Amino acid sequence: MEGSIKLSHGSGGKETSLILKSLILSALSEEELSLRGGVGLKELDDGAAIPLPDGTYLVVSIDAYTVNPPFFPGGDLGKLAACGTINDILMMGGEPKAILDSIVVEEGSPISDVRRIVNSFIGVLREEGVKLIGGDFKVMPRGQLDRYVVTTAGIGIAKRPIVDSSIKPGDKLIVTGTIGEHGAAILSAQEGIAVEGKLESDVNTLSKLMLPLLGAYGDKVHAAQDPTRGGLAQTLNEWAQKSGLFILVEERKIPMRDDVRAFTELLGIDPLALACEGRAVLGVEGDSAEDVLSFIKELGYEEASIIGEVRESEKYSGIVVMRTSVGGLRILEPPSGVIVPRIC
Amino acid sequence: MEGSIKLSHGSGGKETSLILKSLILSALSEEELSLRGGVGLKELDDGAAIPLPDGTYLVVSIDAYTVNPPFFPGGDLGKLAACGTINDILMMGGEPKAILDSIVVEEGSPISDVRRIVNSFIGVLREEGVKLIGGDFKVMPRGQLDRYVVTTAGIGIAKRPIVDSSIKPGDKLIVTGTIGEHGAAILSAQEGIAVEGKLESDVNTLSKLMLPLLGAYGDKVHAAQDPTRGGLAQTLNEWAQKSGLFILVEERKIPMRDDVRAFTELLGIDPLALACEGRAVLGVEGDSAEDVLSFIKELGYEEASIIGEVRESEKYSGIVVMRTSVGGLRILEPPSGVIVPRIC
Repeated sequence: MEGSIKLSHGSGGKETSLILKSLILSALSEEELSLRGGVGLKELDDGAAIPLPDGTYLVVSIDAYTVNPPFFPGGDLGKLAACGTINDILMMGGEPKAILDSIVVEEGSPISDVRRIVNSFIGVLREEGVKLIGGDFKVMPRGQLDRYVVTTAGIGIAKRPIVDSSIKPGDKLIVTGTIGEHGAAILSAQEGIAVEGKLESDVNTLSKLMLPLLGAYGDKVHAAQDPTRGGLAQTLNEWAQKSGLFILVEERKIPMRDDVRAFTELLGIDPLALACEGRAVLGVEGDSAEDVLSFIKELGYEEASIIGEVRESEKYSGIVVMRTSVGGLRILEPPSGVIVPRIC
Repeated sequence: MEGSIKLSHGSGGKETSLILKSLILSALSEEELSLRGGVGLKELDDGAAIPLPDGTYLVVSIDAYTVNPPFFPGGDLGKLAACGTINDILMMGGEPKAILDSIVVEEGSPISDVRRIVNSFIGVLREEGVKLIGGDFKVMPRGQLDRYVVTTAGIGIAKRPIVDSSIKPGDKLIVTGTIGEHGAAILSAQEGIAVEGKLESDVNTLSKLMLPLLGAYGDKVHAAQDPTRGGLAQTLNEWAQKSGLFILVEERKIPMRDDVRAFTELLGIDPLALACEGRAVLGVEGDSAEDVLSFIKELGYEEASIIGEVRESEKYSGIVVMRTSVGGLRILEPPSGVIVPRIC
């Protein structure tokens, strides 16, 4: 007996890393984990990159979406399933080309709801010029599934894959917008707790950011991730751990809406651990960071902000430290425990 | 209001075709459904095929697995999820290369069970030389999922994709082994009904069949499918409908184990609608069919059998007719209704 699966195993934080290591990574050899000349399971990145004969890379990614409720302020399961996978391809440095979707539905679900989800999904693909090329559709008997599990696999082409472990000392960290909105909106909907303002998910694709950015500053962007499950805290910790470098962030530089701040204070939760579904965190070469920031703002991401930097440090290797708004320093741990169940 | 999702919508038969048409195909334009120079959603085949610059094709496929029980005679969810997707790539004429898996687990599931499933999954990949290159892991709260949904996306390379609509008048139809075993084993486990003999799923990969066959007789194999949900009856009807041709099969030529026959007779169900998970149906050029059959038998598929043929017929365009063991003719309809819930 080795216990049972806990909700926290799915939160995208510390426990998720542990269960993945225990169940999957430890079952595979070094050779099996590696993808020669590309990016495989070993890198634990947003997706995989397979070298193609012409020198480009095929980028692929898979994600399951179980978000509850399936319709939420700012979006729905269909939009989320399209955006999430498109963003994973973009964060690998890829241009999204095609997607496959597998839909599992509970018997008795209203067809009109399924249609809304599918139409929303297709609407995103249409806007993005991403082709739906395959899928699956299954039904589970009533009571055996709380409505929907949608899984999407995305395919793209990258000139050069972006690997999160490639951050370098001197890199600046840019966040492209206000954080925590998706997590706050879902939690608010789940708990029936509201605050003044309008908590809305930020779910959106990042192609209008990433494609021009990679075109203009491709070699300056060393790392890119959309901070979904586990939020900004998880992304920064993954980068620090993978690179063995020290990350220092400035709390007052992290863009956040007032309603999200009020909501998280009310509930006593850390907004840095809340999922975003339409933001990117970028690790950018230090000398170019101000230029890249201006470029990003001109693209319409006006709240983008340089939130910190990467340093070499023997003492703080793999550690993220935050200078708080009041001036103190605290270690920003990877999130653990149950953050928000069925957040995405 | 347009009603609700029924179990039969997921059975892989007539109702599945209808709901897919209503929800997805009708929401996309002709242009969106087509994949220029390759195989897209329009073909409703086992997967998609994307033309590559070097003249080969990237074959991709996705499938969700919800089988209940997750451990069954002859296999388990992990083996099924690996074999099913590998077989889809093979049936498209592809050589399977890589796979991504997304695992959704109910809170409280024994970790030892998840580990058995994962190990079984990895075991198949290892044997087949297929690389696991990405994945996702999510947890749904207790009571919101009956244990597991595993979704796998497969990637392969094909010299020439095999499209099921390519059957031609004069083609012979070959089944590579006894049919209905997976469906019978799952149904028996679900219902707690046994017969004499040992009902066991046939779940297995078909690489030892397809790779040599495509090497030796690639241009003679016009169509290939693994008759999973909806069984042989569904596969043959899909082929007839897609090609507009007439298919005639001989009941006495269809290989079936005695225990499967006894079980289906006991329950009054049609074995031709029961899923196989380790068999292929092939449409082979008539003149070469006997040679291909011998070749397949030499590969170890000793129960392979020519079960019928493809004809041109205005009157019976798109129809499958079976000459029964007692000599009569009956139309073999596409399966409808609830065949076996959570069969795969």
